[in-house]
Amino acid sequence: MADRVIGVDVGGTNLRAAAVDAEGTIACRQAARTPADAGPDAVVDALLTLANRAGAEAGLPPDAPLGIAIPGPLDPATGVVAFTPNLKDWRDYPLGAALRQRTRRPFRLANDGNCAAVGEARFGVGRGVDDLIYLALGTGVGGGIITGGHLIEGTTGFGGEVGHVVIALDGPRCTCGSIGCLEAYVGGWAIARDASLVATTADGMALLRLAAGRPITPAIVATAARDGDPAAGAILDRAGRALGAALGAFANIFNPRLIVIGGGVGSLGDALLEPARTAMANHAFPENRTAARIERSRLGDDTALLGAAALAMEAPTIEDEATG
Amino acid sequence: MADRVIGVDVGGTNLRAAAVDAEGTIACRQAARTPADAGPDAVVDALLTLANRAGAEAGLPPDAPLGIAIPGPLDPATGVVAFTPNLKDWRDYPLGAALRQRTRRPFRLANDGNCAAVGEARFGVGRGVDDLIYLALGTGVGGGIITGGHLIEGTTGFGGEVGHVVIALDGPRCTCGSIGCLEAYVGGWAIARDASLVATTADGMALLRLAAGRPITPAIVATAARDGDPAAGAILDRAGRALGAALGAFANIFNPRLIVIGGGVGSLGDALLEPARTAMANHAFPENRTAARIERSRLGDDTALLGAAALAMEAPTIEDEATG
Repeated sequence: MADRVIGVDVGGTNLRAAAVDAEGTIACRQAARTPADAGPDAVVDALLTLANRAGAEAGLPPDAPLGIAIPGPLDPATGVVAFTPNLKDWRDYPLGAALRQRTRRPFRLANDGNCAAVGEARFGVGRGVDDLIYLALGTGVGGGIITGGHLIEGTTGFGGEVGHVVIALDGPRCTCGSIGCLEAYVGGWAIARDASLVATTADGMALLRLAAGRPITPAIVATAARDGDPAAGAILDRAGRALGAALGAFANIFNPRLIVIGGGVGSLGDALLEPARTAMANHAFPENRTAARIERSRLGDDTALLGAAALAMEAPTIEDEATG
Repeated sequence: MADRVIGVDVGGTNLRAAAVDAEGTIACRQAARTPADAGPDAVVDALLTLANRAGAEAGLPPDAPLGIAIPGPLDPATGVVAFTPNLKDWRDYPLGAALRQRTRRPFRLANDGNCAAVGEARFGVGRGVDDLIYLALGTGVGGGIITGGHLIEGTTGFGGEVGHVVIALDGPRCTCGSIGCLEAYVGGWAIARDASLVATTADGMALLRLAAGRPITPAIVATAARDGDPAAGAILDRAGRALGAALGAFANIFNPRLIVIGGGVGSLGDALLEPARTAMANHAFPENRTAARIERSRLGDDTALLGAAALAMEAPTIEDEATG
């Protein structure tokens, strides 16, 4: 078990690497734009450059392990990335094999939502908690689950897709092709969709004024709601109730101690989270509701990087497995 | 790790005990009616009588472990049963303490749905599978989940309540007090509710004829559907689509290898399971859908008893924990 490793977070926009120690202290940060349109090889080159730079600056040995958070589902055993919504040409990309050719470092790969759950459990508000759900409420809805101390990865690494659970059989269409997913209510794109619809009506005056000719974002909806605009409040109320219904379902399935809310939509405030708490209370068994507290993430943008680092510290890496 | 133990299944109607070995072979079965209305002490006396008889007949030592499946949520660490829908006066009953006073045997307690999941993974169609969901489709909907080889029990033992996840924000009222739970669509009581409603209309002739003056059961609905009655087929189609939507959500959360369907409603056949498969395909990511196969349980009434026995074989029992 390594006590100093390099964490890497491959985002659709930003690529970040840093040295991380067993207390979760981050040092020697490196960052660059992700060459998202240049294909996977360019991303691998860029991430190794950043990782090596972070490792060298931190004085880590050349075989210090890497933990890498990937913005899409992958099989952690084989290192094959199934797809990434925001990186070009990554379908069925053998990232594990590509890394093995280009670095001597052992490494561990995981989906960024799963990494974030581990980051919260190891270094965040979930420190010491064995039963934890992390929800990343951004443009999309992702996350990860730790139950009884174990990260849910699933039989082929596609576990933890908490944004794509049905909460309404006759609900709106989701980007994933399904109907009525949680994300189709509380994803940033869904809130923007609802706001755009309202903006076509007489109720949309406040939203249009705040947007000043640009697209209406979830942040604009939250500002309007804080200013007392009833239409904006109703949009966040609907999204929050949907979120709470899903949290109630998660509470009944997992009986978690803690639900951690991260992401930009997650920071919109009480206009979203209060209806969520109420709906969760209506949808969960009393015992499951009582056991679970809801908290905001306080790790900011570092959640997935820290979790990837924690996984590289704890678990057998792909390199370890390949060599015995 | 004991290789021969006594499994006990405390049902709302029947109480059953048997000796179980490491291959899942059942011997020296004992059964009685559960004294469900006589209070918990009477049930404890009755279950220990059956268990001791099974142990004696099988030639097991007096300290052979007990594994006990309980029809309600409990905290496996403390042995306190929160409630049991079908047994009188069990609210917050300290079953662990009561057993410790009355038997020298070490024991392990678990919710019956969780036991059944373990039974399938250890001795049933899920033998050797590390990622498995068991769904008990009976009058109610229960079940249990094994992910990465670990049973989900949750932070206070209330995990695995797969019947009480919202699938429709505006759905029917559930017995648990919530709205739109899976059970409110596919539980036996929900199918009977739908059939009773249809029976008040002109479409209900076939159902009324088959019921012959008695309440319409799910089995009657299935018979009518097999006979070609469109109203009965529509009832099972609706329940099946709801089931499939939930299976799709479970597939996205857990990425299981196997979903095992048990219970009386689960045996109603293709009129229920075919729409479920179709809906699951619509609601799960392709990778998660492909990874998971659906099978019927083949352990019959023994699933929970075998799982309780497997838990007693594998894990530290309450007695072990208490004594260090």
